[in-house]
Amino acid sequence: MGVSRTAYREAIRILVAKGLLESRPKAGTHVTDRSRWNLLDPEMLAWMFSDEPEPGYVRDLFELRGIIEPAAAALAAERRSAVQLEAMRGAIEAMQRLGLSSEAGQLADRHFHRILLEATGNAALVSLAGSVGAAVQWTTHFKQRTGKVPRDPLPEHVDVFEAVAASAPGAARAAMTTLLHHALEDMRAPPSQSQLRNEED
Amino acid sequence: MGVSRTAYREAIRILVAKGLLESRPKAGTHVTDRSRWNLLDPEMLAWMFSDEPEPGYVRDLFELRGIIEPAAAALAAERRSAVQLEAMRGAIEAMQRLGLSSEAGQLADRHFHRILLEATGNAALVSLAGSVGAAVQWTTHFKQRTGKVPRDPLPEHVDVFEAVAASAPGAARAAMTTLLHHALEDMRAPPSQSQLRNEED
Repeated sequence: MGVSRTAYREAIRILVAKGLLESRPKAGTHVTDRSRWNLLDPEMLAWMFSDEPEPGYVRDLFELRGIIEPAAAALAAERRSAVQLEAMRGAIEAMQRLGLSSEAGQLADRHFHRILLEATGNAALVSLAGSVGAAVQWTTHFKQRTGKVPRDPLPEHVDVFEAVAASAPGAARAAMTTLLHHALEDMRAPPSQSQLRNEED
Repeated sequence: MGVSRTAYREAIRILVAKGLLESRPKAGTHVTDRSRWNLLDPEMLAWMFSDEPEPGYVRDLFELRGIIEPAAAALAAERRSAVQLEAMRGAIEAMQRLGLSSEAGQLADRHFHRILLEATGNAALVSLAGSVGAAVQWTTHFKQRTGKVPRDPLPEHVDVFEAVAASAPGAARAAMTTLLHHALEDMRAPPSQSQLRNEED
């Protein structure tokens, strides 16, 4: 394959550590069943999103987001620290100042959703931040591809922030549900396949 | 450290692949911030549960379960295949036949919860099966340690199964919420620290 034996072995070890390959005595090394791949592993996500991800996978991540984020918003309203609240406020201000068509503004958007997960104080939920971030990012891509005038998602982020700041779990859950509902609506008008092909050039 | 240089290097590579260590040019190799550890990685879970896990981590996993599983039960009710339904029925029969004090019965319990996630048809939710399984397993441990006569969780599993079989998402969500509510109650009577110490001998 034109690579050194050492590099090849290292690659195999990494893929085994990621659960994509498994080595069994006598049976050798095999690709594991896809259902056993950890699709929430941060590097797996990066690999899958480095090219055009499968539409089914984007849908799956978005569905996960719809389950996780409203619940996380409610927990964050009960548990957030003053520092986390300030960080969320900073992220919203950055989104406002930089706009969501800029890389930096999109980064602030992902940051907002990450701090919200951190504010739950739940390490398992924080481990999902990469997956949620990938879904956030892909939503933005989809929106820009549809060529529609993008709806301003800022007011919805402010609503989530204010409910979290007011320590109001029910309102935080409702505000996040509304935010996701609108994001999903934006994703429901995906570009045609030919549009996608043209943009890839 | 009494290990070969090759074994040491391989260990470092695996820990980097898992996100526990990071190598930066000039800065060398460091342990990453704990908030960046992927606590949902199947092997990370196995390592954490190979010894007494931190109570905070068990609580986090259980909270994640409470968010994921009722939503998954509702999706499974809409999407499960006939084969998945039969596998769930088989798992319940095995739990009934083998009892939850046996290893095999506990395995059937975890299998039930895994098939439910698979029946959502959502690869991201399936990737959480290991974490949910760890929480299921630990609930059983806790129950056995409290020394209480264990409540029979079979009827609640049957309720979830029947709602999924009847393609009734609302009923499936409610049945899973009840199941988890009771499991949480069982966990709320943890043994005293001295009990734990005695059991460790």
